[in-house]
Amino acid sequence: MLKVAIVGASGYTGVELIRLLLNHPQVEITCVTSRQNAGASIDSVFPSLAGRIDLTFDPVDVDTIIRKSDFVFTALPHKAAMAVVPAFLHAGKKVVDLSADYRLHDVDVYEAWYDKHTSPELLDEAVYGLPELYRQQVVDARLVANPGCYPTSIALGLAPLLENNLIDAASLIIDSKSGTSGAGRSAKVGSLYCEVNEGFKAYGVASHRHTPEIEQTLGQLAGKPVQVSFTPHLLPVNRGILSTCYASLVQPMDTAQLQQLYAQRYAGEIFVRVHPQGELPNILHVRGSNYCNIGVVSDKRTGRVIIVSVIDNLLKGAASQAVQNMNLMQAWSEDSGLSDLPLYP
Amino acid sequence: MLKVAIVGASGYTGVELIRLLLNHPQVEITCVTSRQNAGASIDSVFPSLAGRIDLTFDPVDVDTIIRKSDFVFTALPHKAAMAVVPAFLHAGKKVVDLSADYRLHDVDVYEAWYDKHTSPELLDEAVYGLPELYRQQVVDARLVANPGCYPTSIALGLAPLLENNLIDAASLIIDSKSGTSGAGRSAKVGSLYCEVNEGFKAYGVASHRHTPEIEQTLGQLAGKPVQVSFTPHLLPVNRGILSTCYASLVQPMDTAQLQQLYAQRYAGEIFVRVHPQGELPNILHVRGSNYCNIGVVSDKRTGRVIIVSVIDNLLKGAASQAVQNMNLMQAWSEDSGLSDLPLYP
Amino acid sequence: MLKVAIVGASGYTGVELIRLLLNHPQVEITCVTSRQNAGASIDSVFPSLAGRIDLTFDPVDVDTIIRKSDFVFTALPHKAAMAVVPAFLHAGKKVVDLSADYRLHDVDVYEAWYDKHTSPELLDEAVYGLPELYRQQVVDARLVANPGCYPTSIALGLAPLLENNLIDAASLIIDSKSGTSGAGRSAKVGSLYCEVNEGFKAYGVASHRHTPEIEQTLGQLAGKPVQVSFTPHLLPVNRGILSTCYASLVQPMDTAQLQQLYAQRYAGEIFVRVHPQGELPNILHVRGSNYCNIGVVSDKRTGRVIIVSVIDNLLKGAASQAVQNMNLMQAWSEDSGLSDLPLYP
Amino acid sequence: MLKVAIVGASGYTGVELIRLLLNHPQVEITCVTSRQNAGASIDSVFPSLAGRIDLTFDPVDVDTIIRKSDFVFTALPHKAAMAVVPAFLHAGKKVVDLSADYRLHDVDVYEAWYDKHTSPELLDEAVYGLPELYRQQVVDARLVANPGCYPTSIALGLAPLLENNLIDAASLIIDSKSGTSGAGRSAKVGSLYCEVNEGFKAYGVASHRHTPEIEQTLGQLAGKPVQVSFTPHLLPVNRGILSTCYASLVQPMDTAQLQQLYAQRYAGEIFVRVHPQGELPNILHVRGSNYCNIGVVSDKRTGRVIIVSVIDNLLKGAASQAVQNMNLMQAWSEDSGLSDLPLYP
Repeated sequence: MLKVAIVGASGYTGVELIRLLLNHPQVEITCVTSRQNAGASIDSVFPSLAGRIDLTFDPVDVDTIIRKSDFVFTALPHKAAMAVVPAFLHAGKKVVDLSADYRLHDVDVYEAWYDKHTSPELLDEAVYGLPELYRQQVVDARLVANPGCYPTSIALGLAPLLENNLIDAASLIIDSKSGTSGAGRSAKVGSLYCEVNEGFKAYGVASHRHTPEIEQTLGQLAGKPVQVSFTPHLLPVNRGILSTCYASLVQPMDTAQLQQLYAQRYAGEIFVRVHPQGELPNILHVRGSNYCNIGVVSDKRTGRVIIVSVIDNLLKGAASQAVQNMNLMQAWSEDSGLSDLPLYP
Repeated sequence: MLKVAIVGASGYTGVELIRLLLNHPQVEITCVTSRQNAGASIDSVFPSLAGRIDLTFDPVDVDTIIRKSDFVFTALPHKAAMAVVPAFLHAGKKVVDLSADYRLHDVDVYEAWYDKHTSPELLDEAVYGLPELYRQQVVDARLVANPGCYPTSIALGLAPLLENNLIDAASLIIDSKSGTSGAGRSAKVGSLYCEVNEGFKAYGVASHRHTPEIEQTLGQLAGKPVQVSFTPHLLPVNRGILSTCYASLVQPMDTAQLQQLYAQRYAGEIFVRVHPQGELPNILHVRGSNYCNIGVVSDKRTGRVIIVSVIDNLLKGAASQAVQNMNLMQAWSEDSGLSDLPLYP
Repeated sequence: MLKVAIVGASGYTGVELIRLLLNHPQVEITCVTSRQNAGASIDSVFPSLAGRIDLTFDPVDVDTIIRKSDFVFTALPHKAAMAVVPAFLHAGKKVVDLSADYRLHDVDVYEAWYDKHTSPELLDEAVYGLPELYRQQVVDARLVANPGCYPTSIALGLAPLLENNLIDAASLIIDSKSGTSGAGRSAKVGSLYCEVNEGFKAYGVASHRHTPEIEQTLGQLAGKPVQVSFTPHLLPVNRGILSTCYASLVQPMDTAQLQQLYAQRYAGEIFVRVHPQGELPNILHVRGSNYCNIGVVSDKRTGRVIIVSVIDNLLKGAASQAVQNMNLMQAWSEDSGLSDLPLYP
Repeated sequence: MLKVAIVGASGYTGVELIRLLLNHPQVEITCVTSRQNAGASIDSVFPSLAGRIDLTFDPVDVDTIIRKSDFVFTALPHKAAMAVVPAFLHAGKKVVDLSADYRLHDVDVYEAWYDKHTSPELLDEAVYGLPELYRQQVVDARLVANPGCYPTSIALGLAPLLENNLIDAASLIIDSKSGTSGAGRSAKVGSLYCEVNEGFKAYGVASHRHTPEIEQTLGQLAGKPVQVSFTPHLLPVNRGILSTCYASLVQPMDTAQLQQLYAQRYAGEIFVRVHPQGELPNILHVRGSNYCNIGVVSDKRTGRVIIVSVIDNLLKGAASQAVQNMNLMQAWSEDSGLSDLPLYP
């Protein structure tokens, strides 16, 4: 059994990592840290886990984590992650980092959108952990930067078009909608039930920090720089992201052709499901699972393609994709511990 | 007191019309019809109205409606509306029709998206009842075609840009999200609580019937034909539409300039509220009211403008806009009976 | 126009008071205070009110409030209310206090469940503002203690039984469920969307502070001390309280008899609606209104009566009941400014 | 691998059975029937299952089911179940029936609350499948009547008190609240999103068909007939039941004593979790799992005990309890295929 640490587990991504790893057949959770809950039993903070875990939260102490574990998931805010990740690598651990700190390859871009980077030397080595696009690199990695939730839904949704140069990349418009767990578990008025329920809004228009990450991946797929308009919205649901992507086709293709392209591209992927022609995805049909569902429509009138992709933002958008990356890094079956079907309804 | 009939009042738009008109100071509801509920007391079907209305539902009988009322709201499905509206006009009644039957001026377009039209001779006369764009025509009208919910949010959101030729109309992409009351009150599996709650999906992609209505109004504003990509989505809330509209600016404008343009355009409009720069609308802030709130952002990186507009789909998107039109047709104060503030939270 | 102050208006009750009073024909809002938002424009904090109010939040300064207004609503936490209410009375203002500070007549009971009372001399004078039970006292009052939300739903639900000695008061069990706005607008993890949505729980079992208030009113109705089991629960909705009350009948009565008793008791009350036999209330049918809806069932098998009553916790449970009390204190029509019908759906 | 049939799988319980059994290590689903969806692929009706099941829905043909399977789950409405269950038993299959048809031992009680029974001879043999109370009988059974959702939450909540004669059974009052999936997947106006969302109501007061089932189990636990007041309510959530049970203690016990009693009673039960003193359960903490969580409070003032128990109505209240029963009938590990932790948030 691989000894695993989860560093920074007081949020929704952390509790999901615990949940998944408790049922993973090749893993033992040996260390779970939380600054704010240090000393408390995990099940007193997360009663859903009662009866299945006996640990208490450790403080975030690098030496303890290194001593107790061989594989580390860091689920910390940006900045906090890069403060500890280099030490884990130096101690010979493998790391999947769920923050934004190692996702961008260009330190200038990172520093323009986030903060001063304290371990830029790792940016070249870090592998962007989207297995459907970078599987072999993940297999070989010491440090995987687990993708953001929005970028995951978008990159999987657009890869077949960009890989085949079928769209005008300059025309890309991405309208995304996320469940409220994406806003985290900290107490803010804007995240209160009565502020979110029966509401819906856009936020971070033309300024969201996932933009450079999206553009980096789409640019790699296109083989040239890509700029997109990206608008996130806040959905009154706990989980789920739906991204609606618009682009101009460089030559006419009908829906059947596009659907076939997608079906072929993802034929070997166990976690990507392409809808039959005429069906479109719903976040309710991936909730609780590692799936990404994709539907595609050609709009003949305007010459555009419309792609709709959905994931569970806490799972394929965070925790279960991190486990998928661990499976690859450990040369285990890619779906080990990830067989959960969506919880519907 | 004006004697008013509501024809087809077993759905959510109908019950909203009743609610609004019960508190309207210049109106008396004298006839409410429903095929399926004929003979039942209104408050047995809609307990929210108990204690405030003593009527029973009449069957949909044209002669009775004509005898009992001087002003008619038709809240029927398309086809059913055009089967009765001409008779009301012929009897000298004024009509606000909430169906799609008289919204499109071109009979060929109507018949391409809907059905054979049975009173095409009225299409020229019918006034599209968006007071902020066509106020004087509404004042003079016998027959007002009350706009669709999506088109209302979109036309108000884009009018200042199109009127001033500030965007490339061919670049318009409209991503809209509607509350579930827009799907009506008929029993369908897809509208069940467990199918909608915690879900989110697109539907009618590149094929929704509101598309020609949207394009008609935007084309009039632009002074030339306009084609748009329009994608509606189903939100897990009872009420509200949010439309996110994307277009390429023909010349650079920053957010402050755009905000000022909108603020000036709508300065005299009591039911349109333009957000200050940096603030964006939320459907929760218009729920239960006749307001349309609009926020605007310039995306310098891509040269696009992003407009976000919100309405209550049952009110400014249907029932209260119908009352606003009646007020204009009767030469009453435009906000008579429409002073409700949004119900937040 | 009566000059009215709302003291402590940064919460959900406060914004509801503003909303109602803006549409009240005999009132002008002249002062709105908030410690945390002092200096901010009201519509920047509550965008739903934009275009209808130009005031900024004042700090909570007693002299300013006295100078600006003739009638004061205090919507402060307990303790904070009794720190300012005596000064308002001393300056000759009438006060409706929405806190718990003046609801309990017995200072010992107050201090056992809350804190040291700093103006116990007012407890005798303060009138418990449930108009359907204490109308004449409210008319004559300088200081009205506006009832709690749970106690309002319960007292109206049980009054006809207790007034007529039809139940064994010792058998009373009250199971109440409240929407989340009852938990207020402060940032707490337990009130986050993701913690409340798709959840449901009991809280404060056998220890909720509304218990003595409930028992005081029920005791007055019964003419002797009453002790109840009271269990509140947290509902995943924004608004609404439903109380299910159980008691043993002292002699058999069937549902028809009970329904008739209730219908007669509340025949003259414009804000209490008794359901016909066989129908039961739903919080959705009172949302946004000052109504209390009540349904009643006799359970022959067990000899018990089951009463179900619903209100909007922010309105009949707080803000609109406060306005109803003001109307009585000012000798205005009791429903002045309170004609809103429920917002359904 | 055991060949398993699911008879009547077009509802929420059916799709949950499929989901669970697809991940069960000792089971192969060989037949899934649905009258209304016969001939359709399962994943076209339930897209959440796409990629994991290749079957199409069979019509409900007894011979086919017998030929294809060795173990049968019947998830049919009452009456439809007893029309087919005897044939399965006669053919030597084991059956877990999820309908109400074999839950009541007394045919007169069944016929008073439901319909004429067509196989009363099986009522003696059928075992009530609540493993925590009747484990050995389940192990030995050919036919298990899977308990109702409400009765499961209530029986587990009250067993320790009744087994030890600690309460006055005549005082029992049970106030239950269920998620909307309990109302099924058929198209009814009352189950529409807009009718349920933001609403809450009681239904079936003093007349719900689960009452005799509850009383049968509680009576067995008490060793004498028991009559209860049972009030179900409809919660605006997809899943979850919370039952709040009230009873008078026959002798004083404090919360600590009661909590200890419960902890001991359920110490060996893997699917029952008793909360520590001072904590109460939330349906969100069992969602998606087979757990029943229980909290207990002594109300000294009134001499009552208040028990709060929660389950997922589709799982411990239906599908996963059915799998737990199958595991026992097959002499497998009781939690085989049931290791899912709750999906929070």
